[in-house]
Amino acid sequence: MSRTAPAGTPLDDAFHVYDTTLRDGAQREGISYSVADKLAVARHLDALGVGFIEGGWPGAMPKDTEFFARAAAGELELRHAVLVAFGSTRRAGTTAARDPQVRALLDSQAAAVTLVAKSDRRHIERALRTDVAENCAMVADTVSFLRGEGRRVFLDAEHFFDGYKFDPDTALRVLEAAMTAGADVAVLCDTNGGMLPLGIAEVVTEVAARTGFRLGIHCQDDTGAAVANSVTAVQAGASHVQCTANGYGERTGNADLFAVVGNLVTKLGMPVLPDGALGELTRTSHALAEIANIAPDSHQAYVGASAFAHKAGLHASAIKVDPELYNHMNPVVVGNGQRVLVTEMAGRASVELKGSELGLDLAGHPDAVSSVARTVKEREAAGWSFEAADASLELLMRSAMGDGAVAPFTLESYRVIMEHRAGGEVVAEATVRVLLDGERLIGTQEGNGPVNALDAALRAALTPHHRWLADVQLSDYKVRILSHGTDAVTRVLVESTDHAGSWTTVGVHGNVVEASWLALVDALAYAALRERGPVGAGTA
Amino acid sequence: MSRTAPAGTPLDDAFHVYDTTLRDGAQREGISYSVADKLAVARHLDALGVGFIEGGWPGAMPKDTEFFARAAAGELELRHAVLVAFGSTRRAGTTAARDPQVRALLDSQAAAVTLVAKSDRRHIERALRTDVAENCAMVADTVSFLRGEGRRVFLDAEHFFDGYKFDPDTALRVLEAAMTAGADVAVLCDTNGGMLPLGIAEVVTEVAARTGFRLGIHCQDDTGAAVANSVTAVQAGASHVQCTANGYGERTGNADLFAVVGNLVTKLGMPVLPDGALGELTRTSHALAEIANIAPDSHQAYVGASAFAHKAGLHASAIKVDPELYNHMNPVVVGNGQRVLVTEMAGRASVELKGSELGLDLAGHPDAVSSVARTVKEREAAGWSFEAADASLELLMRSAMGDGAVAPFTLESYRVIMEHRAGGEVVAEATVRVLLDGERLIGTQEGNGPVNALDAALRAALTPHHRWLADVQLSDYKVRILSHGTDAVTRVLVESTDHAGSWTTVGVHGNVVEASWLALVDALAYAALRERGPVGAGTA
Repeated sequence: MSRTAPAGTPLDDAFHVYDTTLRDGAQREGISYSVADKLAVARHLDALGVGFIEGGWPGAMPKDTEFFARAAAGELELRHAVLVAFGSTRRAGTTAARDPQVRALLDSQAAAVTLVAKSDRRHIERALRTDVAENCAMVADTVSFLRGEGRRVFLDAEHFFDGYKFDPDTALRVLEAAMTAGADVAVLCDTNGGMLPLGIAEVVTEVAARTGFRLGIHCQDDTGAAVANSVTAVQAGASHVQCTANGYGERTGNADLFAVVGNLVTKLGMPVLPDGALGELTRTSHALAEIANIAPDSHQAYVGASAFAHKAGLHASAIKVDPELYNHMNPVVVGNGQRVLVTEMAGRASVELKGSELGLDLAGHPDAVSSVARTVKEREAAGWSFEAADASLELLMRSAMGDGAVAPFTLESYRVIMEHRAGGEVVAEATVRVLLDGERLIGTQEGNGPVNALDAALRAALTPHHRWLADVQLSDYKVRILSHGTDAVTRVLVESTDHAGSWTTVGVHGNVVEASWLALVDALAYAALRERGPVGAGTA
Repeated sequence: MSRTAPAGTPLDDAFHVYDTTLRDGAQREGISYSVADKLAVARHLDALGVGFIEGGWPGAMPKDTEFFARAAAGELELRHAVLVAFGSTRRAGTTAARDPQVRALLDSQAAAVTLVAKSDRRHIERALRTDVAENCAMVADTVSFLRGEGRRVFLDAEHFFDGYKFDPDTALRVLEAAMTAGADVAVLCDTNGGMLPLGIAEVVTEVAARTGFRLGIHCQDDTGAAVANSVTAVQAGASHVQCTANGYGERTGNADLFAVVGNLVTKLGMPVLPDGALGELTRTSHALAEIANIAPDSHQAYVGASAFAHKAGLHASAIKVDPELYNHMNPVVVGNGQRVLVTEMAGRASVELKGSELGLDLAGHPDAVSSVARTVKEREAAGWSFEAADASLELLMRSAMGDGAVAPFTLESYRVIMEHRAGGEVVAEATVRVLLDGERLIGTQEGNGPVNALDAALRAALTPHHRWLADVQLSDYKVRILSHGTDAVTRVLVESTDHAGSWTTVGVHGNVVEASWLALVDALAYAALRERGPVGAGTA
């Protein structure tokens, strides 16, 4: 893609959607991205069309250094976004050129750099242990140096709102030091997250009027107002907004990218994402939750599974007639959907609807519909969930419709032995006995865990008779413990793939191995269906 | 308690903290309160000092009718709060006195009634299928009737913000009908939740100026701004704020009571709760999550377990010096606490700080600090996480400090057999061989899963020599698969309890059973430490 603008400038520079999931978002308790995760996150964010992706702090964090190196080596092709390195101003008493941390920012080869600087006099004096003049020199010197090396520079003015309240002159001097030295945006950070919207609006308006600088906003969610504060700052004149996917971040988190963008586009009419990108909001949110290995928040604004769900009752019939009166927007715009939560009758309707989504015409099978609705209800009460396991649901539907081909074998027994031997070696071995067309088949295999061994043994028994099984792989495995303490049941989701696509099945039991077995059996039964002809669930 | 004010008036009527957890909060997907739950929720809210507790819709919901009956029969003694019944205005074409739904509100014996009324002309015409004049008559008639019966009346003006934008005159006529007939507060409801703070401020200010009515605010969280919208409305003049505990509610939920109250008291200096109540915020939030059977949100403003948790090595060193610079407030004020998370990002300072939090003086052991920082970094890179496993971290620290007592036994081997027998029976059996003070101990036990069996076998081996082990229970067990596909490792968190408290340990391995074993061993090692003397991690 040809660019005429200098490095670090996205195609449309008028408004910056700036994502810091990979740096500030990674501060969230429980998140630990691998370099491969970071590359995957950046690709999703770029596909959504954010303007800037802050990738981490090269030099300070080895994984971040590697991330920038691999990005520069061609592993990260960005269509929309500019990659940004985050770092600190030079230390007191040296020059930027000699500061190894500043050099690491250059070495990252990122076209843009965000420098964090203290703007609260108390932090300058008590944490940094220097004075305002030296702090401003550190800012000016580092910005000049990076600008001289051709980098675009943003200034994160840390603790700005607290600092501005305590000593406005110092806070403004820090911004001025950066902007005079060539920084492009002065980002006002509510680092401790204690602000509320009207306070944000007042300060942003005042600082814009007093300085004329291009302003950005970075909010933390400690008052539960990060999204509102960010949007309010934009209304007050900020044209650069820093967010994280799903609001990941330290303590209560940062401003949620998806809610901020959803609000800017649909409430304020600001086209801050490329055409068509808004419809990817929900999918992107869930994919990034998956990579972070955090369950998606079903009550999240715009993208949550419940964000447009109405509990059956007072409004149910009215919603059916006039949905726009009961939603703040059309959920399809952000790639989400409306759901009416099921009563017994609505259950039948949703079973039929789901059936037709899977290509099964259940309309002519009222008994099958009732049976599926009842089974789903019973099983979900016992901890099953078919939302993410379409293949298991399709097997249930086909079985209720009398499709006898859904069970390609019958289990007689299995046994798994797991040993931690005296020498320290850990081994798992499984033996499976199944009946296939009247014949008794036995398979024994080792694996690196009980489920892996069970899967291998089952295949060893069946593959000689079903050669196509060699093409089927167990590609992902998820475990969730559903209730607490002694009554816990375990839900296992198994994702399987063949040359043509993937599908997901579910099993639930008090014993994790048996739950896994149930999901594995469904996985192979579904593979057999795919082998036989066209099916509904799973990809391609 | 003697009152001189009329029924339905709390002791301080100047500002209303109005909770609707039991009515609007119960619309959340997954919440289903029993009557006993509702009574328990009301007691917690009253103890916190809210002014009004909306208990439900008597007449429409049988459980709500029973709740009010049992409350009136003396099962609910309220010290602070007034109980409120929620209901609708009379139907079109009848009188309030003859409408059974209105009579049920009287029969509830609640001293105050909140009436919901349509204030958006589109809803009046398209959902209610009547005209503005009849809608206003329904409002005026019902309010007058209830006032005549001695009830205090609030008006929930449904869809007010959307209605006011579409047709301000109709929206204001509805408020006027209610207030002229004797309602005390006109509550402006953002029912679809599409508003943002500056829009809320504008409408509340304008409606207050045009009407002079006492205004209330009720916000839904569809833009992720319910808390900010509620607080902004108060700043713009509303003196009655409707919230739900933890923001429970339909779709994305309602304004979170704890965040709204936290903001009003600590940011705006409004003493809206009785003296001393703010310190109960965190405890109340967690208790109400428990009753709703929803895991507390650890990232919730003010009350979340992570709300004052710091991860970054960068900040940790400064926090050590000056905690107030890095929190927006003192967490103790809301009954919460500061935590330092030790992760791969942690430097030596975080390890020392965490050590002192756990009561270990690492300052005099520089080598131990380095060794712990290095081990944590290495293990976290391999999938371990010590953030939620303080007990495992403390064992690591004590071991680095040369405390030889941290391993109460040595494993020789274990074997777990998991069978699905031909009859369909599923059994798990474990045998453990351990060395204790030179003696070889063997335990064999069955369990409802491999981990449960292993835990039982280990205890069977050790308990004859360590009687105190009988008091230790495995109380929770969590499994997470960390990477995808064939290279997956499994992380297991085990929570254990004894008569005095609980603690959490972690294990990571490619094999789920071995990962569980590692966490179980730490759990018992930590139990042995607790038995020996005071420890740092875990409760009490």
